[in-house]
Amino acid sequence: MSQSIIPNSIFDNIRVVLCQTSHPGNIGSAARAMKTMGLKHLYLVKPDKFPDAHATALSTGAADLLERAIVTETLSEALTGCAFAIGLSARKRYLSHETVGARTAAIEASKIAIHQPIAFVFGTEMSGLSNAELDCCQMLAMIPANPEYSSLNLAAAVQVMCYELRMAILDGVIDTPEVTELATNDALEGFYTHLEQTLLYIGYLNPAAPKKLSERLRRIYARARLEKEEVNLLRGVLTLTQEPRKHSKY
Amino acid sequence: MSQSIIPNSIFDNIRVVLCQTSHPGNIGSAARAMKTMGLKHLYLVKPDKFPDAHATALSTGAADLLERAIVTETLSEALTGCAFAIGLSARKRYLSHETVGARTAAIEASKIAIHQPIAFVFGTEMSGLSNAELDCCQMLAMIPANPEYSSLNLAAAVQVMCYELRMAILDGVIDTPEVTELATNDALEGFYTHLEQTLLYIGYLNPAAPKKLSERLRRIYARARLEKEEVNLLRGVLTLTQEPRKHSKY
Repeated sequence: MSQSIIPNSIFDNIRVVLCQTSHPGNIGSAARAMKTMGLKHLYLVKPDKFPDAHATALSTGAADLLERAIVTETLSEALTGCAFAIGLSARKRYLSHETVGARTAAIEASKIAIHQPIAFVFGTEMSGLSNAELDCCQMLAMIPANPEYSSLNLAAAVQVMCYELRMAILDGVIDTPEVTELATNDALEGFYTHLEQTLLYIGYLNPAAPKKLSERLRRIYARARLEKEEVNLLRGVLTLTQEPRKHSKY
Repeated sequence: MSQSIIPNSIFDNIRVVLCQTSHPGNIGSAARAMKTMGLKHLYLVKPDKFPDAHATALSTGAADLLERAIVTETLSEALTGCAFAIGLSARKRYLSHETVGARTAAIEASKIAIHQPIAFVFGTEMSGLSNAELDCCQMLAMIPANPEYSSLNLAAAVQVMCYELRMAILDGVIDTPEVTELATNDALEGFYTHLEQTLLYIGYLNPAAPKKLSERLRRIYARARLEKEEVNLLRGVLTLTQEPRKHSKY
C-alpha cells in the first residue's frame, strides 16, 4: 500500500554531516545552502573552529542552523540513529562501495528518509573523506563534475546535494510502497563489533595481520543495506558461533 | 532527422552573465562554480570591482575564466550574438514572462545551445535583475528554494544552474530533431527599435504617456522565441507600415 508523504517530516529526517572542516566560513556557507533548500540538521565532526564569527557571518539568515548544530568527536556519534549514510566523493574511490550520481543518491535517500533518519557526509576541504569515514557510509555519491577541474567548494557541493534532495522530495519521486525498517548506524556498529569479536574468537582474524578483513566485511554489509531484523538474525548467528560447542548436531 | 551532438561545442555556446556584481569575491566563486561544470564563458556587466585580487583568490583553479572574462557596459552588449537569454529570478516576477524551474531551463537552453549561443543572466547580490534587464531575457528560471528562506548566495545559484546544464548536456536529454535558427539578441533589439519607431509613426505610442507599451510587446515576442526569418518577416511589415500610403487595395 502506498503511504501518504509529509515532505516536512522528510526534511526533518535528513542530516548534513561535515567532517573536520578547516575553514569556519565554509560551515556558515554550508548552513546557508542547507536552509535555502529546507534542510535543518547540521552535524559537525571535530571542526577546527566552531562556533566562530566568520561562520556566523557567512550563514546570513541561517544562523539558527549553526546555533542548533551538533558537534561530535566521531562520525559514528553523528550518525547515531541514522538508517543510511551517504558519503560525498569527488571521484570513484572503491569498487566495493556502491557509487551513484547525486541525483540518484537524493532519490534513494529521500525514500528512506520518509521513515528513518539518513545523513549526507562531507569530508575535509583538502582531502575529502578518510577511508575510516567512508567505511561508516553505505553509499557514495558523486557530483558529476568537469573531469579537468572537479574541485567544488565544500559549500557548493552541499548546495548541489541539498538542491537535489529538495527536487527529489518536491517532485514526489518518492511515493513508495511499504518498506521494512533499516538497521540504524548504532545497530550496525554493534553488529560490526560483535562480528570482529567472533572472527577473533574463531581465529579467522589475526590481530597481528588483520589484512583489512573488517573493512572488507563492512563494505559487503554496507552494500546490503541491512534491515533491523536482519541484524538481529546475523547477531544471533554470531552469538551461537561463540558458544562453547558441547556437542554438534552433525 | 536527429543530429549528432558534440557536448563540447554545447558548453562553448553557453555564457554566464553577471550583472553589476558588488563583491568581487562572488565573481571568483562563480568562475570556480562554472569551471567545475565545464562552462567557460563569463561576461561581467558593469562589475563594481574587476579585476580584483579577491576575485582571483576565490576562483582558485579557475583564474583562466577570469582572465578571459568579457566586461561590458550594458547587458545588451553581453548578449550580442545570443539566440536566447534566461534570467535567474528568486521569485515569480511577471506573469507575462515564461517562468520555469532551473531543470527545465537547462534542458530548453541546451537544446538551443547545440546550434547557437545562449546566456544565463544573474542580477546583483542585493536585488537581482532589474526590470530593464529582465526585458532583455526571453525566459525566467527559478531555483525551487525554501519559501521561508530563498536567499541563495550568487555563486551558489550559479553552481546549481551550471550543474543542471551539465546534467542536461551529459544526460543527452537534448537529442533533438532539426531546428530552425532563432533570431539573435541583436536582431531582436533591432526589431524592437523598429517596432517602437513604427508605433510612434502610426500614433499608437504616445511618448508623453507610454503606458509600458514597449515592455509589454517585448514580453510577448520574448515568449514567442522568434526565429531569424520571422524577425525579417515582422520587420517587413513594419517597413511597409511606415511607407506613405499612396493608395490602398481595399
